[in-house]
Amino acid sequence: MKTLSNPIYPVIWQDDRVILIDQTRLPEEYHTVEISSCQAMAEAIKTMIVRGAPAIGVAAGYGMYLGAREIADSDRQKFLHQLEAIAEMLRKTRPTAVNLFWAISRMVQTAQESRGTVAEIKATLLETAKAIQQEDLQTCRAIGDHGLSVLPDKPQATILTHCNAGSLATAGYGTALGVVRSAWREARLQRVYADETRPRLQGAKLTAWECVQEGIPVTVITDSMSAHCMREGKIDLVVVGADRIAANGDTANKIGTYSLAIIAQAHNVPFYVAAPFSTIDFSLPDGSKIPIEERNVTEISQIGTTSLCPEGADFYNPAFDVTPAKLIAGIITEKGVLKPHLLNN
Amino acid sequence: MKTLSNPIYPVIWQDDRVILIDQTRLPEEYHTVEISSCQAMAEAIKTMIVRGAPAIGVAAGYGMYLGAREIADSDRQKFLHQLEAIAEMLRKTRPTAVNLFWAISRMVQTAQESRGTVAEIKATLLETAKAIQQEDLQTCRAIGDHGLSVLPDKPQATILTHCNAGSLATAGYGTALGVVRSAWREARLQRVYADETRPRLQGAKLTAWECVQEGIPVTVITDSMSAHCMREGKIDLVVVGADRIAANGDTANKIGTYSLAIIAQAHNVPFYVAAPFSTIDFSLPDGSKIPIEERNVTEISQIGTTSLCPEGADFYNPAFDVTPAKLIAGIITEKGVLKPHLLNN
Repeated sequence: MKTLSNPIYPVIWQDDRVILIDQTRLPEEYHTVEISSCQAMAEAIKTMIVRGAPAIGVAAGYGMYLGAREIADSDRQKFLHQLEAIAEMLRKTRPTAVNLFWAISRMVQTAQESRGTVAEIKATLLETAKAIQQEDLQTCRAIGDHGLSVLPDKPQATILTHCNAGSLATAGYGTALGVVRSAWREARLQRVYADETRPRLQGAKLTAWECVQEGIPVTVITDSMSAHCMREGKIDLVVVGADRIAANGDTANKIGTYSLAIIAQAHNVPFYVAAPFSTIDFSLPDGSKIPIEERNVTEISQIGTTSLCPEGADFYNPAFDVTPAKLIAGIITEKGVLKPHLLNN
Repeated sequence: MKTLSNPIYPVIWQDDRVILIDQTRLPEEYHTVEISSCQAMAEAIKTMIVRGAPAIGVAAGYGMYLGAREIADSDRQKFLHQLEAIAEMLRKTRPTAVNLFWAISRMVQTAQESRGTVAEIKATLLETAKAIQQEDLQTCRAIGDHGLSVLPDKPQATILTHCNAGSLATAGYGTALGVVRSAWREARLQRVYADETRPRLQGAKLTAWECVQEGIPVTVITDSMSAHCMREGKIDLVVVGADRIAANGDTANKIGTYSLAIIAQAHNVPFYVAAPFSTIDFSLPDGSKIPIEERNVTEISQIGTTSLCPEGADFYNPAFDVTPAKLIAGIITEKGVLKPHLLNN
């Protein structure tokens, strides 16, 4: 396996195209994919070559620019009309993460508000995509540093996280792993527990990989072991990412997050969500309206090409669940730590 | 895959040796292993060719006979002395399930109490091993039928189960899946939800396979999906097996059982344990004294020979956890449904 110099950037703009780390091939191999069209970007988001709510937002920003770049028409109205079709195609890639919709809307709005020629609009769109990326990186660093305030009153903490809310899931640095990185930098972290996060194993594969890259001690457990570990006193706090947060604080995140929040509460282990403020969807009063993506059942029934289950069994594969605000001790954002009960309850 | 006629017997005594279904190869292939010595039986238990608390008890009974058969000495005291060494070897195979120790003790006691010649003692031991097997089969059928009394007041129920407490885990019929089978026979069952049960996937592999063999509708989910499924109203009750039950009702079972019990309580879904009465270890006042086996970490880090995790990560692999009695609505035994709070609390 190739050892990288830090930091890890899952999306890079270089030589007029996007370079993505192929997250479906980690940790076995570090491989990048070149994306030069909005169709290719849509496919990369769907197939989870790039994944993680903020990283999807960054990728969609560039996807919008790549699409805009291909529009031949120099008439402003026709250009905007075609740009909307590109936006619609990208919106259909993943339904749950709000960052996707937020980034696409920002790109559309930028184009609509831009007064220049179509060529000038295109240039502005590229700058906006770059800005989304840079802002996300700064946001994640701020989230990480705000996270220091929720660490327990002991020299070094153990943090359990679910799925991957790390550099790979953002422009860089990470949200939940941003808190981990800041804690590690300040020598406030003893160890990360990464639950493997079935079915796609982002915890075992991506979170463990990120930690190993930076020398952060990480223990991988199965999703079913968190309660046992908490009862043994191994876990001081839980920090996870978010794909969409409703106005009342209910949080959609990778399937298994809701289980973990229930289990944390049963052990009086504080449960935090770390996410950019833009993850809060104020148009949704509560989590019941968040659309939950169902993915292909082969994610459960196979590992690679190895079949795990007998023929004839049925499967159910919701990719996300919703954790009610009452189970969340705080939402760590770039603006500070929000208490869910202070949101629009 | 070979299609079997029902019923499924994981341990068969035939032509002076034991035939085991190799449970490490299901559901990909149905393959049996011949066991003719106590050493081979110990290895089969350790490597989980045979697994499941009651099935381990049955296998250990035959293992004791196979060992006794090999003892050349016809002096009673010397025979008993050597038999104790065989018992000790078999006791070391798996530490958590009480049925192993119970069956071995019964075999030792049978030998000690037998007044005949060594040859006669050997014959009695074979009859005792067969009796353990027959009794377990009857016990499981009684457990299944007693389980009908805990089904909800609706025509057909959905039952979530964890790991495999089926025919494969017992002499036949199963404990938790005994309840499923009885409910299916009485047309009281709509569907089984089998969580996959990482790391060894006994739910996805064995429980799903047993259900498919008998035409029982089964949906496989990951361990992390149970809370989401319960909130969606998909689960009427949870029934699991047990490896050891302390005198106060605290129950050791496959890792993830404790998580599931917490999650069930949070959704007011009744959580039942189904197990032979002999699973209750009255020598242990509570679950804190039950030894928890830790197994090889490659169970987490690999699927078959495919590595899932990066080099440099640590792992923790407890094979069991302990569910406190207060989370258990009832223990379904062959004598009836016990209320844990009526046990020695």
